[in-house]
Amino acid sequence: MKPREKATTQQPVYRVALLGTKFMGKAHSQAYRNVNMYFSDAPKVEQAVICGRSPEETEQAREAFGWQEASTDWKAVVARDDIDIVDVSTPGNMHCEMVLAAAEAGKQIVCEKPLANTLQEAERMVAAVESAGVRHLLMHNYRRVPAVALAKRMVDDGRIGKIYHFRARYLQDWALSPGLELVWRFDAKLAGSGALGDLGAHVIDLGRYLCGEVAELAATSETFIKQRPVEAGSSEMADVTVDDAAALCVRFANGAIGTIEASRFAPGRKNHNTFEINGSKGSLTFDLENLNNLKFYSVDDQPDTQGFHEIIACSLGKHPYADNWWFDGHLLGYEHSFTHMIYDWLRALAAGGSTHPDFHDGLRNQRILDAAARASQSRSWEVVG
Amino acid sequence: MKPREKATTQQPVYRVALLGTKFMGKAHSQAYRNVNMYFSDAPKVEQAVICGRSPEETEQAREAFGWQEASTDWKAVVARDDIDIVDVSTPGNMHCEMVLAAAEAGKQIVCEKPLANTLQEAERMVAAVESAGVRHLLMHNYRRVPAVALAKRMVDDGRIGKIYHFRARYLQDWALSPGLELVWRFDAKLAGSGALGDLGAHVIDLGRYLCGEVAELAATSETFIKQRPVEAGSSEMADVTVDDAAALCVRFANGAIGTIEASRFAPGRKNHNTFEINGSKGSLTFDLENLNNLKFYSVDDQPDTQGFHEIIACSLGKHPYADNWWFDGHLLGYEHSFTHMIYDWLRALAAGGSTHPDFHDGLRNQRILDAAARASQSRSWEVVG
Amino acid sequence: MKPREKATTQQPVYRVALLGTKFMGKAHSQAYRNVNMYFSDAPKVEQAVICGRSPEETEQAREAFGWQEASTDWKAVVARDDIDIVDVSTPGNMHCEMVLAAAEAGKQIVCEKPLANTLQEAERMVAAVESAGVRHLLMHNYRRVPAVALAKRMVDDGRIGKIYHFRARYLQDWALSPGLELVWRFDAKLAGSGALGDLGAHVIDLGRYLCGEVAELAATSETFIKQRPVEAGSSEMADVTVDDAAALCVRFANGAIGTIEASRFAPGRKNHNTFEINGSKGSLTFDLENLNNLKFYSVDDQPDTQGFHEIIACSLGKHPYADNWWFDGHLLGYEHSFTHMIYDWLRALAAGGSTHPDFHDGLRNQRILDAAARASQSRSWEVVG
Amino acid sequence: MKPREKATTQQPVYRVALLGTKFMGKAHSQAYRNVNMYFSDAPKVEQAVICGRSPEETEQAREAFGWQEASTDWKAVVARDDIDIVDVSTPGNMHCEMVLAAAEAGKQIVCEKPLANTLQEAERMVAAVESAGVRHLLMHNYRRVPAVALAKRMVDDGRIGKIYHFRARYLQDWALSPGLELVWRFDAKLAGSGALGDLGAHVIDLGRYLCGEVAELAATSETFIKQRPVEAGSSEMADVTVDDAAALCVRFANGAIGTIEASRFAPGRKNHNTFEINGSKGSLTFDLENLNNLKFYSVDDQPDTQGFHEIIACSLGKHPYADNWWFDGHLLGYEHSFTHMIYDWLRALAAGGSTHPDFHDGLRNQRILDAAARASQSRSWEVVG
Repeated sequence: MKPREKATTQQPVYRVALLGTKFMGKAHSQAYRNVNMYFSDAPKVEQAVICGRSPEETEQAREAFGWQEASTDWKAVVARDDIDIVDVSTPGNMHCEMVLAAAEAGKQIVCEKPLANTLQEAERMVAAVESAGVRHLLMHNYRRVPAVALAKRMVDDGRIGKIYHFRARYLQDWALSPGLELVWRFDAKLAGSGALGDLGAHVIDLGRYLCGEVAELAATSETFIKQRPVEAGSSEMADVTVDDAAALCVRFANGAIGTIEASRFAPGRKNHNTFEINGSKGSLTFDLENLNNLKFYSVDDQPDTQGFHEIIACSLGKHPYADNWWFDGHLLGYEHSFTHMIYDWLRALAAGGSTHPDFHDGLRNQRILDAAARASQSRSWEVVG
Repeated sequence: MKPREKATTQQPVYRVALLGTKFMGKAHSQAYRNVNMYFSDAPKVEQAVICGRSPEETEQAREAFGWQEASTDWKAVVARDDIDIVDVSTPGNMHCEMVLAAAEAGKQIVCEKPLANTLQEAERMVAAVESAGVRHLLMHNYRRVPAVALAKRMVDDGRIGKIYHFRARYLQDWALSPGLELVWRFDAKLAGSGALGDLGAHVIDLGRYLCGEVAELAATSETFIKQRPVEAGSSEMADVTVDDAAALCVRFANGAIGTIEASRFAPGRKNHNTFEINGSKGSLTFDLENLNNLKFYSVDDQPDTQGFHEIIACSLGKHPYADNWWFDGHLLGYEHSFTHMIYDWLRALAAGGSTHPDFHDGLRNQRILDAAARASQSRSWEVVG
Repeated sequence: MKPREKATTQQPVYRVALLGTKFMGKAHSQAYRNVNMYFSDAPKVEQAVICGRSPEETEQAREAFGWQEASTDWKAVVARDDIDIVDVSTPGNMHCEMVLAAAEAGKQIVCEKPLANTLQEAERMVAAVESAGVRHLLMHNYRRVPAVALAKRMVDDGRIGKIYHFRARYLQDWALSPGLELVWRFDAKLAGSGALGDLGAHVIDLGRYLCGEVAELAATSETFIKQRPVEAGSSEMADVTVDDAAALCVRFANGAIGTIEASRFAPGRKNHNTFEINGSKGSLTFDLENLNNLKFYSVDDQPDTQGFHEIIACSLGKHPYADNWWFDGHLLGYEHSFTHMIYDWLRALAAGGSTHPDFHDGLRNQRILDAAARASQSRSWEVVG
Repeated sequence: MKPREKATTQQPVYRVALLGTKFMGKAHSQAYRNVNMYFSDAPKVEQAVICGRSPEETEQAREAFGWQEASTDWKAVVARDDIDIVDVSTPGNMHCEMVLAAAEAGKQIVCEKPLANTLQEAERMVAAVESAGVRHLLMHNYRRVPAVALAKRMVDDGRIGKIYHFRARYLQDWALSPGLELVWRFDAKLAGSGALGDLGAHVIDLGRYLCGEVAELAATSETFIKQRPVEAGSSEMADVTVDDAAALCVRFANGAIGTIEASRFAPGRKNHNTFEINGSKGSLTFDLENLNNLKFYSVDDQPDTQGFHEIIACSLGKHPYADNWWFDGHLLGYEHSFTHMIYDWLRALAAGGSTHPDFHDGLRNQRILDAAARASQSRSWEVVG
């Protein structure tokens, strides 16, 4: 089926069906809910239908998040003629089936990361959207944190020069307690992988975004707590089948080298997605725990005042997306990155194009994760496929 | 007229009329728009009418911000029976008239800070709401930044002990350029005062919130650029009739001493609303440019690991408002403070009460600003009235 | 008596007599001990005699600090012909008598801050050194922290532009415990004043150094703990006769306004001597607890990368004094500021001149402290005499 | 020859011969020069002889650094009966010969890091000192930065719990310019290796100190600028034969995993030797560019005030070495770490023992560097020998 064509003689209205009602359903909902409030040049979007498994929870989500309809039959919704965009915000093990159905129905598709739990699924999904000729967006939302978008602009403008290093880590600490039960994120069948796929995928995406393709890597991973209670308070234990942490050495196609780490066992690190780029003309550092800031060192500054600039990346007229929100130094938060992503996506759709990151980005990310998993086993450097 | 009674047998729905379509109208709008999405226990709110002066701009604001109706006749709207809450988000010189009308109509009233441009107006407004028996909220939104609310909880819990010092400053830099024209904020007739009333009022509110009443003060202020172009690019100049910066020494009723500064002439300080509290048991520091963080030093920590704790004040189960948003360390931004304020206000209304800061807080704040203005003139310490 | 003339045909050797064996005696000793090791162009200095009251302690200090002789008769030492420089590192209540004797003997004089405990003494001391025609140095050592010296260079170069604000505070926390006995620093007879004279004098000196003269001020001070045990563990109490903290509003001769605070009651602040300067072209901030750093914001930076530069002020070829120590980023500490001061002083002496801060600086500082004490009493702004 | 015995009935005096007059000669000199000034319980040390190649430079160093004699014949000096300690502060390619001679002469030996330029030399040196029965100290001075020593104490006390991660990097930026000539550090014959051996060795030492032995690793390295002018300004180019940067994934014997990086191509990083440790009970971070600070997160803190403690590790009675210097918060610098090392060493010698890090530590470090070099070639994980 062909994607539903938007008349270009009047401003299009995009009607969205959202699959998923939990954390990511909420995050994506607020983006659709707010994008037209803040971005006057964004195409109009309608929150048409939200789909979930439980009728009660889906209805609650509908009302709270502002969707017109609730449904427990996502397949029927995806097939509806009055839907333009299907947004897949379910856990990774559902992505493939849903995306295939949406592509089959000719919808434009938004998919939460990771694209899929396996490389094979990711390949099928890319083939499907390509064959259907639909647009596709992968929600690596951190690319649209203004400070990260500013970093990208600076790299592209040559202000960092030739890149020598990319080092990044994404650390959290929620898994520290041995008493924490075996939630789905500890189960390879549901989650695909552990810290590597959950957290590492984000910093790998940022690495690709800012430094280009990863060529090869070495890796190791570890499961520090090998068994957990099957449920909270239970004395029955089950195996943790994913990694708690992973560490990579990477070489980029452009010659840069670096390290990447992901861990759920870093006390005090709540959402510590941080990177540093060193190039021939300067350096950049970012930390999601202080997400409005970007630090920049320039070799071109006057010698005696060289030092990392602490940029508060929300000044009007200066920084990405800033003009649409508040005044200088009035900080943005986590969810704004989703709003920015949907804004860019809607504008791209209306212009007849698409935007990055798309499913190709997701597939390449998956190949890197796959190489990391292989490298952990082979104990050798692996070339990214 | 009596305030419109809410039936208590079912969940009340509060219908709001918002007066003001600009920056603050937008900030308050998003609070009403989003409070029911994130706070499932908040009473329901309806964005009934938005009022402005220009029909076109008001209609644009209506559509963008999600109000049901637009109107250019605020007086008629305030008098309507189907309105429960009147929100006054216009410039300070309009507050008094609007609040008086809303009180007369028996509405619950939200007012953007400052309460009024003069002490006399503020007194009339307090008298009016008291006499009408309506509830009133003053939007000193920074009290509801989670890190600030955490600071308040800690002070109240005695974790800081007896307070010795409160030092605060609110610094910005937008007025630096002599070429900047005489916008309304430089005109005493419209703005009441300059940095002191605009920025100083915020830190004074935080001082009262966290440390109690200011007893007496000394002050100075300065207008660094005494004339500005009447409009952008013009060579015709007009006098700046407000202060560019002010500095105060203060003594609190509880014996604490400190300093307060407000300035629009601090390069690099975009929205630097910062305070430090020193007490017998510990210290707290906060900076709005890093608003998810609170720093805390405890004299009770183990001696060799004493040091300021860098608290990321958005962990679930630990920090104010955090449970209603995202996960640990997923940062909030500027506008969330408004949402929190409206949440607390709606809950208080539904419970038949009110919440702070209210107009009494606004009046006391105004008395402090007034004492500061007097002290600048008298060159003596002034007792706060 | 005339100052001992140095032959100019050969490199002079300055022989020093140090009065004082405690903390400041140690700090000054290390400066004389090390200046010729690191600064190859410094005139040679000889640690001739150290003077103290206790023969045992003085001998111990002699051996540890590397002095040739120990003496308990400072008057005899000051009169000796083979002494060029007398360094007064005793408590403030001894300064006047010792300086007068040294001036009488025609010695070049170094004096630890404060110059004196009273304004009257300070005036006598300035008169004495002027009349004797000797050189004089006041050890406000923080001027010679490299980051502070860099700040001064930047101000002098016009890189900050016209100064609008100077705000500073010097906070410590050692006096917090009510059980701490009445050490000499709590006794006005010995210490002159409390936090104001001890800590405030330092930031006042930095204010004068960086922003020029203070014209007028308002002030308040407080003694939070009014009685303390006469000695450790005693139940006998005595009055604290100095301030625990002081807060000032100041106006500088150049039109800048600001605040100054000094306190010993700020938990977590160990040696928090910090200032911020805002000018028409940029801002500077410094904190002695991170003394190798200076932060600088420039309005001339490219708009989207403006932000405070975190300068590590110890890079060779770039920063004051750096070439004489180690490599880039190899940090210096507290005592190095004394070494730098003595280096500058020795070079100035050899060139037939002197350097700042001298006793005139000390006297002006004292006049500001005196005005602050008066202002605390008068509850009015006071003009600095 | 047997080590020279110290009479135990009186306080021993250790007479030192220092080989090396450059940067490290200066750093070690100041330690001997100052250790008895600050550490009253340190055995006495005499700066007997300094040895260098150039008579002029050695005499200058003797005078500046305070040595009794200068010599250009290190072999003769090492053999002298009146020397107790031989300190080898020459470049790495001289270490082996000098240490062997000193061991042969029965001297206690201090050696600057790296122990040697090759693993083979390191093994010979360890054999020599063991066979001679002399004490040996390897100057990995950063272990004696007070904040690092505090970290060690906390790890040993169990306050971090079981360690999951060690991640470290040592970054500098002095090699960035392609115009920088081929100084000795770019020449494998003189320097052994590049960033890995120069900088990586330091963080590997800290990793071993704090987390225990490295079991296996993967690695990569790169030479970004492959040719440089043979001398400043020359157009004749020569090959850089060392690495500019290296990146490692490591697994520790205790099960921890992590990453290690060393680079001379990180703009803005002047001396950025930084590590983070995550354990079951807390985390620690350190950065040499802010060397008086240690950050500590404890899972045992009260939930709502958990956050990294910013410890200023120089408070009397609380922190390693602090009592011997100044007051709380009076910062120490780079060179103090050498003084502390010599202090510990002298005390250990006087007690008939030795201290870490010794040559065994150096050899193990070398084995890790060797494994890293092999891993870079083999493109496989390598077990540390």
